[in-house]
Amino acid sequence: MTATIETWKDKALFTPGPLTTSRTVKQAMLRDLGSRDAEFIRLVREVRSRLVQLGQASEPAYTAVIVQGSGTFGIESVISSVVPPEGKLLVLVNGAYGERMAKMAQVHRIPLAIQRCPENWVPDLAELENALADPQITHVAVVHCETTTGIINPIAEIGAVVKRCQRTYIVDAMSSFGAYPIPLAEYGIDFLVSSSNKCIEGVPGFSFVLANTAALQAAEGSARTLALDLYGQWKGLESDGQFRFTPPVHALLAFHQALKELEAEGGIEARAARYQNNYRLTLAGMESLGFKPYLSPERRGYIITSFYYPEHPAFSFKVFYEKLSEKGCVIYPGKLSHADCFRIGHIGRLSASDVFLLLAAVKATLAEMGVE
Amino acid sequence: MTATIETWKDKALFTPGPLTTSRTVKQAMLRDLGSRDAEFIRLVREVRSRLVQLGQASEPAYTAVIVQGSGTFGIESVISSVVPPEGKLLVLVNGAYGERMAKMAQVHRIPLAIQRCPENWVPDLAELENALADPQITHVAVVHCETTTGIINPIAEIGAVVKRCQRTYIVDAMSSFGAYPIPLAEYGIDFLVSSSNKCIEGVPGFSFVLANTAALQAAEGSARTLALDLYGQWKGLESDGQFRFTPPVHALLAFHQALKELEAEGGIEARAARYQNNYRLTLAGMESLGFKPYLSPERRGYIITSFYYPEHPAFSFKVFYEKLSEKGCVIYPGKLSHADCFRIGHIGRLSASDVFLLLAAVKATLAEMGVE
Repeated sequence: MTATIETWKDKALFTPGPLTTSRTVKQAMLRDLGSRDAEFIRLVREVRSRLVQLGQASEPAYTAVIVQGSGTFGIESVISSVVPPEGKLLVLVNGAYGERMAKMAQVHRIPLAIQRCPENWVPDLAELENALADPQITHVAVVHCETTTGIINPIAEIGAVVKRCQRTYIVDAMSSFGAYPIPLAEYGIDFLVSSSNKCIEGVPGFSFVLANTAALQAAEGSARTLALDLYGQWKGLESDGQFRFTPPVHALLAFHQALKELEAEGGIEARAARYQNNYRLTLAGMESLGFKPYLSPERRGYIITSFYYPEHPAFSFKVFYEKLSEKGCVIYPGKLSHADCFRIGHIGRLSASDVFLLLAAVKATLAEMGVE
Repeated sequence: MTATIETWKDKALFTPGPLTTSRTVKQAMLRDLGSRDAEFIRLVREVRSRLVQLGQASEPAYTAVIVQGSGTFGIESVISSVVPPEGKLLVLVNGAYGERMAKMAQVHRIPLAIQRCPENWVPDLAELENALADPQITHVAVVHCETTTGIINPIAEIGAVVKRCQRTYIVDAMSSFGAYPIPLAEYGIDFLVSSSNKCIEGVPGFSFVLANTAALQAAEGSARTLALDLYGQWKGLESDGQFRFTPPVHALLAFHQALKELEAEGGIEARAARYQNNYRLTLAGMESLGFKPYLSPERRGYIITSFYYPEHPAFSFKVFYEKLSEKGCVIYPGKLSHADCFRIGHIGRLSASDVFLLLAAVKATLAEMGVE
């Protein structure tokens, strides 16, 4: 245990999360608060209400449930808790996170249908409508921003089909909630999942589920686990305001502060504008350095962008990554099944000056590597 | 979102967790660190090695797996991941946390046997040996310190029986690990579970499993979930040092610091001495105020103590709790099925001066309530 941790300056995180957060969000964690304390219970109550409002919805028709663990825990909480034993899940897949939802259904032996399309393409609506001719299918799940590529799936249009066909609609909005306006009722979303360390700009520690309360109530008795029982978690929070099991108190303190800072920034609209600006500056700068984005423009979002590796024998992603990291900029490897890409995130407490630093670091690194 | 959070002074937490932590443990969270960053990977590596050492064991015969979420998530990770489809679990139950393990087995449809005894009594070893005459039983699980009462179950003696009968041994050491010496190999423990916010004195956010590596490897393919797949989590950490799913980076930063502070204090022995002193002072003070402990002396530990409500018409636990809380002392309600008790914890960053404050607050509160 001799490691010294460099604390003089943290690197800027151009990743899909954990992200760079504000100093004040982190400082909110400098406390010890009992998980049954009235102050903490009030704070959790406020966080839950505010999350529902961010979904342009209101209680009690919609409700927020906090689930300990990472975003994946929230997703598995929904998948394993809301599909009844006689149900069947259709997952729309165009990336690793869609695949992960399908995997969860398989692990829990939930009857499953998969509608796949290429990673640079969005799900076809007519194909979806055809798939829903299968009367066994009760639930449809899709990822909003597939972080695999950064593609934005058309959750409004998909929701319209799902609702017309009277199915339950699950949206993984992990990396988009807080950065894209997502009106739950208008889009027909029954369960939306996101996490503490994405566009609300908190620290990692929990995920949250925004649920149509009636759909959640219908899930009573369908849970396949204890810890990830979504209905049970909700009942616990509703009964006495306490978590069934120890909550990540400090991550919640940070998140409460992060929600205040989101409001102070001007809400989702203002945050979206900052992220869009990060995206545009990054794209323009990277293109001027010769990099090509993976997705066609109309499918790209402003959460994270995939760039092809340069076609140059001197390029090595490992070296590129490490040299950028030494310069204080952390980017992200690719996750594509068929193309060599890396990713640059635009979210978190980053603005134009951080992007300028990144672009300067990329330029210097390419020169060091002898990549023209 | 108008709540102001009082930050001038936190209350002392005489609870089973989340606990009072040191200022420096919390300050370790004032960072943003990428979860794939080399520094973070090194830190996780150090934390895992140090945990194995605290179990008086060494890698690679034993290994540590970190599981996101609360302690319950770690327990469910073990129960749902290590009992094979053809296995059967025997749970020794003398409190709510033993019941919870049995509940988990039921949720996952794992064949289950329960050996129950009263909450103020420890499991009978002869009865255990008889129970293990059932050749179907493959795994035995017990809680070390049953926080329901504070009772200490004889995990060494139970382990001797389990090992003689060649079964796999699971110990929930949630509230004891770090405060009691637990030699994994000597006690025959195959899987021990504890969490970040107990006697290591970190903040809540994850649990950890100390595993006999061979027993863990034997669990490959038995997981009933994705997020709580213990073997999968271990393989992920071993392959590239990264978590499969976003880790609670800040809770790990705090825990790394907490491990250093445990070492600086003098290790488990010194920490045990401080907690024992807290316990002795609390007990003496409470007895002098007329309170009676629930357990007989030889079954009590120094983690948490259950006291009977005073037999006085003016006593109300709710009022007692709130008046103590106003005085800066947070105690804990009871969880017993058949007796009216409350609990006082002795763990966390608390010492004699905190106990003196608590005792003064209890005395003043009793006077205010008119309880003699």
